[in-house]
Amino acid sequence: MKNNLGVIGLATMGANLAQNLADHNFRVAIYNRTGARTEELIKTYGKDRGLVPFYNLKDFIASLEKPRVVLLMVQAGAGTDAVLEEVCGLLQKGDIVIDGGNSFFKDTIRREAAAREKGLNFVGMGVSGGEEGARRGPAIMPGGSLAAWEKIKPIFSQIAAKDFKNDCCINLIGANGAGHFVKMVHNAIEYVDMQLIAEIYWMMKLGLRLKNEQMAEIFAKWNKDKLNSYLIEITGKILKTKDKKGKYVLDYILDSAGNKGTGKWTSLESLDLGVPSFSISAAVFARYISAFKKERIKISGYYKKNWIKTRLSAKQLEKALYAAKILAYAQGYELIYLASKKYNWNINLKELSRIWQGGCIIRAKFLDNLYRIFKETPNLENILLSKYFRAEISKNIKDLREVAAQAIKNSLPAPAILSCLTYFDSIASKNLPANLLQAQRDFFGAHTFQKKVDGEFFHYQWE
Amino acid sequence: MKNNLGVIGLATMGANLAQNLADHNFRVAIYNRTGARTEELIKTYGKDRGLVPFYNLKDFIASLEKPRVVLLMVQAGAGTDAVLEEVCGLLQKGDIVIDGGNSFFKDTIRREAAAREKGLNFVGMGVSGGEEGARRGPAIMPGGSLAAWEKIKPIFSQIAAKDFKNDCCINLIGANGAGHFVKMVHNAIEYVDMQLIAEIYWMMKLGLRLKNEQMAEIFAKWNKDKLNSYLIEITGKILKTKDKKGKYVLDYILDSAGNKGTGKWTSLESLDLGVPSFSISAAVFARYISAFKKERIKISGYYKKNWIKTRLSAKQLEKALYAAKILAYAQGYELIYLASKKYNWNINLKELSRIWQGGCIIRAKFLDNLYRIFKETPNLENILLSKYFRAEISKNIKDLREVAAQAIKNSLPAPAILSCLTYFDSIASKNLPANLLQAQRDFFGAHTFQKKVDGEFFHYQWE
Repeated sequence: MKNNLGVIGLATMGANLAQNLADHNFRVAIYNRTGARTEELIKTYGKDRGLVPFYNLKDFIASLEKPRVVLLMVQAGAGTDAVLEEVCGLLQKGDIVIDGGNSFFKDTIRREAAAREKGLNFVGMGVSGGEEGARRGPAIMPGGSLAAWEKIKPIFSQIAAKDFKNDCCINLIGANGAGHFVKMVHNAIEYVDMQLIAEIYWMMKLGLRLKNEQMAEIFAKWNKDKLNSYLIEITGKILKTKDKKGKYVLDYILDSAGNKGTGKWTSLESLDLGVPSFSISAAVFARYISAFKKERIKISGYYKKNWIKTRLSAKQLEKALYAAKILAYAQGYELIYLASKKYNWNINLKELSRIWQGGCIIRAKFLDNLYRIFKETPNLENILLSKYFRAEISKNIKDLREVAAQAIKNSLPAPAILSCLTYFDSIASKNLPANLLQAQRDFFGAHTFQKKVDGEFFHYQWE
Repeated sequence: MKNNLGVIGLATMGANLAQNLADHNFRVAIYNRTGARTEELIKTYGKDRGLVPFYNLKDFIASLEKPRVVLLMVQAGAGTDAVLEEVCGLLQKGDIVIDGGNSFFKDTIRREAAAREKGLNFVGMGVSGGEEGARRGPAIMPGGSLAAWEKIKPIFSQIAAKDFKNDCCINLIGANGAGHFVKMVHNAIEYVDMQLIAEIYWMMKLGLRLKNEQMAEIFAKWNKDKLNSYLIEITGKILKTKDKKGKYVLDYILDSAGNKGTGKWTSLESLDLGVPSFSISAAVFARYISAFKKERIKISGYYKKNWIKTRLSAKQLEKALYAAKILAYAQGYELIYLASKKYNWNINLKELSRIWQGGCIIRAKFLDNLYRIFKETPNLENILLSKYFRAEISKNIKDLREVAAQAIKNSLPAPAILSCLTYFDSIASKNLPANLLQAQRDFFGAHTFQKKVDGEFFHYQWE
């Protein structure tokens, strides 16, 4: 009996996806460069339950029913290229290779073209949800041809998470790198979501002087309303978590955050595409500056903090966070919208908002609002143009302004909050002072400027 | 009689540098791919006055005294590589090629290594000051070997601008790409300087309802005090410039600014180096969003502006701008400091602050303060650690906070101002809420976190 598909690479994500597939009655061939890991997985999962171990790539490939479906779950970068070359050499026309790793979307574009030339189908598949998601149901964002999608749909739909209507959190995102691109932006939005929550936590703690338990209660309450989301939920849980000695775990964690590069990639791409993603780079830089702990200690010794009494209610913070979240998503979705145009992906933002409702880190009630506005207006270039968010912003922006102003007056760093406001006040301004920038550039560099009336380029002899 | 050096590429910058060199009694061989431009330059400048035209690269090279010094002023990128290959084929060991174009510093690192392998000296030279600077005296930032520097120093010192003590605005910055790197950061700082001024102009115009003439007077006044700088000076001039019909030129310029990519490069590099350059990317994004004019008009129609009466004095704006400027330079200098470490350039920040005092766009009285603090403490990692800026920030930060808060409450976009405050409030914070980010990442991704007490990595079973 042939196996239904094969999984190569049995690190955390690969091992969990393989088990998830086997749970759903697929016969899954598994292979790992070091055989010990393969053996271990069989031991954990149990023999004869759908995972079929191989210790030789040729046999592994030969064991698959045709057209073969091979899922690569190996390290992004050179590792993926190496394995891909070996695997493609063993496949035949019409077979399907899926890269389910954390690959950079431009690599995926390149690999898809190379595989297509050999007559193979290549799918770049973003998988979100971490270990738990992979095992029980991730959000899945495949990018590739329609033909390849139709072949893998019956398999991966079964293991995907469920959206709010119990449909599968999976759909074809677009050609070649589209899936990995939206997964990358998903992570960047996650950075901003997390940073916004961290700033609000800081205002509660330092501005309002609340205790961990009080904050935990507030977050739990928020989780029942418009802010309902996985990240708000776990923040509430984290805030009240005590270790065996009764100490709050959060309080002894170093304030220095790492990153795995997807936020950085997104910032680089925004810069290259000419899209203003203020909050994404602010969130990345916020992580960077957290790592400058020694310098921060030194500099903080030199400057007095400017403390005033903070007069903010939890309700105001909730409304501010909600407004900022809308503005963060406005930036992320605008980036996807414009990248989709540039790369001809034709990404369906309604479907994307549905897929992100389950399994992934940014899953939230909020995504149902996004789903509904794109259902109404599929090609909306900016969510701020929707009637729904227009009303929501109008109801909450004043509180965001108040919270931002108080943060500033209290020396509380708020990179994400302030950059969300910067985005809003810029994109919602008919006029900006960039006329002065044009004038200066023309003055010192004869770069010319455009006139308002006809858009013509002009150089003025300023002196 | 042999020529002292040769200039290849006679577009604006090349033509003006060649004339500047000839003015200083050098015999300058000139060559351009299309001979018409060479002829034209000779016509403009006059025959037999030091510019010696060539229409054949071989003859051009053969005409130079040894070791030959060839200055390339051609388009950055592939153009430079092509010309370089041709030129290097004609040079001999010990000859010196200088790339005075706007090259990306990583290209310069690559080209220097390749030239060195052939026994040639390669210098990547940043030249700042635009057309006027090139003709009358630019700031010059060469990167290369000490040997090469000693040979070209007598030439280029003569054409450089002068600093506040009448010394030449030139010195060896460091090995290979160091010169082009600091030129790139110079431009990025220029972006932030310009954006800060634009935001203050906008607050004067929309917040305080001042007329162009009034603003021009204020800028002229500011130019006599701590903010004294080329950019403040030309802003004052721009504000009062009227065309022949008596209309203010500034008022009919479109508010959509272009860019030539150096700000973007700097942002990309900050992201890659892990350095938090909030304001540089904010200034780049501010230019990007200015180009979204159509979308801005659409969105602005949907949202009411939040107007309150602005109670700010010109003095407060001056102090705010000055504090923000310090914070912008803190970011730019920190980036150079850290890049210098990473690339082993050993950049002398005192010398850099001296070189930027003349010729270049960011020239300002301010740079003398920077010069003095680095004279006192050569290896200062952050200018905020200096006694001088500590006092200056303490005197002015409150006004910056007030101006920022009022901008927020009045819906006035202030990307550069807010990001400068973000930087300050982050870098001057002993503690940041990044402990929550670590906790969240450990919760959903088992990324582990570091403990405060011993820095050890730890994973907690949160639920």
